[in-house]
Amino acid sequence: MGELKGACIFAQSGGPTSVINASAAGVIQTALKIPAITHVFGAAHGIKGILGEKIFDMSKEDPRELGLLINTPSSALGSVRYKLKHFDEDDTDYKKILDVFQKHNIRYAFYNGGNDSMDTCNKISKYMEKSGYECRVFGVPKTIDNDLWGTDHCPGFGSAAKYIATSFMEVSLDAKVYDTGMVIVIEVMGRNAGWLTASAAIAGAKGLGPDLIYLPELPITIDKILGDVESVYAANGSAIVAISEGLKDDKGTLVSEMNYRERGGVDAFGHAQLGGAAHTLADIIKTNMNVKVRPIELSLLQRCAAHCASRVDIDESYAAGKMAVEQAVAGKSGYMVAFERGSGPGYECNLKLVDVKDVANKEKKVPREWINEDGNGINQPLVDYALPLIQGDPRIECEDGLPRFARLKKVPVGQGKA
Amino acid sequence: MGELKGACIFAQSGGPTSVINASAAGVIQTALKIPAITHVFGAAHGIKGILGEKIFDMSKEDPRELGLLINTPSSALGSVRYKLKHFDEDDTDYKKILDVFQKHNIRYAFYNGGNDSMDTCNKISKYMEKSGYECRVFGVPKTIDNDLWGTDHCPGFGSAAKYIATSFMEVSLDAKVYDTGMVIVIEVMGRNAGWLTASAAIAGAKGLGPDLIYLPELPITIDKILGDVESVYAANGSAIVAISEGLKDDKGTLVSEMNYRERGGVDAFGHAQLGGAAHTLADIIKTNMNVKVRPIELSLLQRCAAHCASRVDIDESYAAGKMAVEQAVAGKSGYMVAFERGSGPGYECNLKLVDVKDVANKEKKVPREWINEDGNGINQPLVDYALPLIQGDPRIECEDGLPRFARLKKVPVGQGKA
Repeated sequence: MGELKGACIFAQSGGPTSVINASAAGVIQTALKIPAITHVFGAAHGIKGILGEKIFDMSKEDPRELGLLINTPSSALGSVRYKLKHFDEDDTDYKKILDVFQKHNIRYAFYNGGNDSMDTCNKISKYMEKSGYECRVFGVPKTIDNDLWGTDHCPGFGSAAKYIATSFMEVSLDAKVYDTGMVIVIEVMGRNAGWLTASAAIAGAKGLGPDLIYLPELPITIDKILGDVESVYAANGSAIVAISEGLKDDKGTLVSEMNYRERGGVDAFGHAQLGGAAHTLADIIKTNMNVKVRPIELSLLQRCAAHCASRVDIDESYAAGKMAVEQAVAGKSGYMVAFERGSGPGYECNLKLVDVKDVANKEKKVPREWINEDGNGINQPLVDYALPLIQGDPRIECEDGLPRFARLKKVPVGQGKA
Repeated sequence: MGELKGACIFAQSGGPTSVINASAAGVIQTALKIPAITHVFGAAHGIKGILGEKIFDMSKEDPRELGLLINTPSSALGSVRYKLKHFDEDDTDYKKILDVFQKHNIRYAFYNGGNDSMDTCNKISKYMEKSGYECRVFGVPKTIDNDLWGTDHCPGFGSAAKYIATSFMEVSLDAKVYDTGMVIVIEVMGRNAGWLTASAAIAGAKGLGPDLIYLPELPITIDKILGDVESVYAANGSAIVAISEGLKDDKGTLVSEMNYRERGGVDAFGHAQLGGAAHTLADIIKTNMNVKVRPIELSLLQRCAAHCASRVDIDESYAAGKMAVEQAVAGKSGYMVAFERGSGPGYECNLKLVDVKDVANKEKKVPREWINEDGNGINQPLVDYALPLIQGDPRIECEDGLPRFARLKKVPVGQGKA
C-alpha cells in the first residue's frame, strides 16, 4: 500500500461513555500530526452529520481544549442511532456518503461506536470498495456494555465498572445505617449482556457489595428472586440486590415490562426502550415481603461519571484511537482496534486489529461459568478479569471544585480562521 | 466550671452523609487525647444504642481505621430516627438514659445529627440538669439538607452539593448527544428546603446545568412547569429540569404523591416517605408533550458519594466534632457547634456555639430573593454562597482502584483488649 493523501473524518455513534472522547482525542491529535492527512474533520451526530454534511474542521480547535477531551464525558461531536440499510436494498445513503467523501477528498473514516457502529463501518467499507473509491475505514470501539466480540474488553467498560463498584460500596454503607431492615434494588445498564451489573461484584470483593446479582444472561423466576431476598433478609436484616435493566423471567418477559408495558416503544435498531426494572422489582418485593424497599437506577450517571473514570480505561481508549489512525495511514482498512490481554502475571493490554465484519451485530455475554451455580452471584474469575480495568486516578483538571470539561468551537468546514 | 472527669459517648442520628464520619473522627480522636475523658464510647444506632446499652469502646479501634473514618461515608456507628417524647409526658426513656450514664460515669454526650437530633440533645440536656446529674451535652451538626438554623451552612451540604453539581454537568453533556430531543427530570433530595436542588445551579454557572430548577419553597402549578419545559424545549430541543423531592403544587399536593399515594406511610417524625417526584413529573410531561422524557433520581448516591466529597466540607466537619469536645471539656453544655462566615473578601469559616434549643425542630429555607422572580431558577447569590463549600479534593485513600473505607471492630464496652 502506498501513501494515501487526503482528509480524514471522525464520527461518534451510539450511547456515550465517560471515555469516548479520550478515543476522539487519540484520533484527532494523532491525525493532526500526520502529513498524509490533509484535513481532520469531525462529523456532527455520527453518520447523520456525514449524510447532512454537518462537518467541523478539528484543526480550528484550541489544542488545550482537544487535550481536555481526554477527561470529558459523553460524545463531544454528538451521537446518533441510525441503522444503514444494506446497499443492495437501498443505496441512497451510500451515494450521499460517497458524494461527501469525494467532495472533501475524505480518504480516512474513523467510526467510534459499538457493534451497531461496526456494522455501519463494514457496510461503508464494502460500498467504497465496490465503488472503486479508495477510503480506509476503521472502527474505534466504545461501549460501557463490554459486549463487543473479538476484544478482551471495551473502552468505556472499565470506567463505568469503577463508578458502579464505587457506588455499590458507598450505598452499601448507607443502606445499613438503620437497624430497621431495608431492601435496596439497584438497576445497572445492560440489555442483553450483564458485564456492568456483574462488576458490582468487585465491591463485594471489598466486603461492600450486593448480596444478590442477577444478569440478563440467566432468565430467572420472580419466585426464585423472592426466595433469595427473603433468605438474605432473614439472615442480615437487609438485602442489596443488583439487577440488569434487561433482566428477564423464565418466560422471557422483561422485569421492566411487567408493570410498565405502556412505556414501550423501540428505537431505530429494534431495541426495546428499557428502564424501570428496579422500580418494578421493588414493588414486587414490597408487596410480597412487606418490608421497606428502595429502588435505585444508576441511569445515565453510570455512563458519564468522568470524575470517577479509570485511568487504565482512559489511556486504552486514547491508544485505540491513535492506533486506528496509524494503522489506516499504514494501509489497513476495514478493521476495528481490539484489546488482547497479555498472558503474564501482571495486567498487560496489547492492541490488535479485528475485521469489522466479524464484530458487527454480535454480542459477547458473560460466560456461564463466571456466574455462580445458583444464578444469583458472580464468581471470582470475573472480579479478577475486571479489577485491572478500573485502576488509576482520572487526573481531572478542576476549576472551582468542579471538572473542567472541553469546550469545542465546532467550526464548520470551510469557515473560520485556522 | 471545674474539670469534669468521666467517660464520653458519641452517637449518630438521622440520614447519613458523606462526611458525618469526619465529625465522628473529630470527636473520637480529640476525646481520646484528653485526660479528663476517661473513656470514649460510641453508641450503636444513636439514642437507641444508649437506651439498649449497645455501646462500643472506641479506644479498642485501630488508630489507622479511626483516621480512615474521615473519608468513609455513612454513619459508621449506625443511625436511628427515634423521637423522644418530652419527659413531662413520659420519662421512661430518660430514666434509662440516666441509668446508663450513671453506670458508665458518662459525663459528656455528643450527638451528631440534624434538627430532630438537636431536639433530642435539648431534651436530654434539660433532663440531666433537672436530675442534678452533671453531664455536658453537645450537638454536632450534620445534614445534607443544609436546613439547620443558626449556622451559615451544615456539614454534609458541601459534599452533596459538589456531587450534585458534578453529576448535573456530566448528565448535561450526556443528555445533548442526540439531536432528537430529550427532556430529563432530575430529582434531588430535600423535603422542605431546596438547598441541594438549588446547588445544581453551580453547574449552570459552568454552562452545564439544568434549564429549570423548582424548589419546595415555592409551590407551583403543573401548568406553569409544563409551559416552562415547552418553552425551553422549543428553543433548545432539550430540557434539563431539577426538582426537589418535596416539590408541591399550588394546592399543597406533593408532586411525588400525585400518582403514587399508595406508596404513602410516614416515619417516626411524621415525615411523609417521599420518592417518585421525578418519575411522576416525567410521566406528566410525556403525556402532555409527547416527547422522550427520562427521570433520574439521585437517590442515596447524593448523600454517600464520599469519592466526590468536598475537602472544605470534610475539614469543617472534623473541626465541628473537635470543637464540641474541647468546648464541653472547657465547661460548656447544651450547645451545637455552628459555622459563621467571615466578612472578608475570601472564604473564611469561623466556629461558634448556638443553643441547641434554638436549633431544635427549626428549618432554614432558601431565601425568596435567591430564587428567580419566575420561580424556576436560582440567582447568583446562591451560587456565590455555595461555591466555596464544594472546594478541594477529598484525598481518598485507594486500594485496587476503589476507596479504602474504615473498618471498625466495634468492641462492646467491657470486652476485648485495649
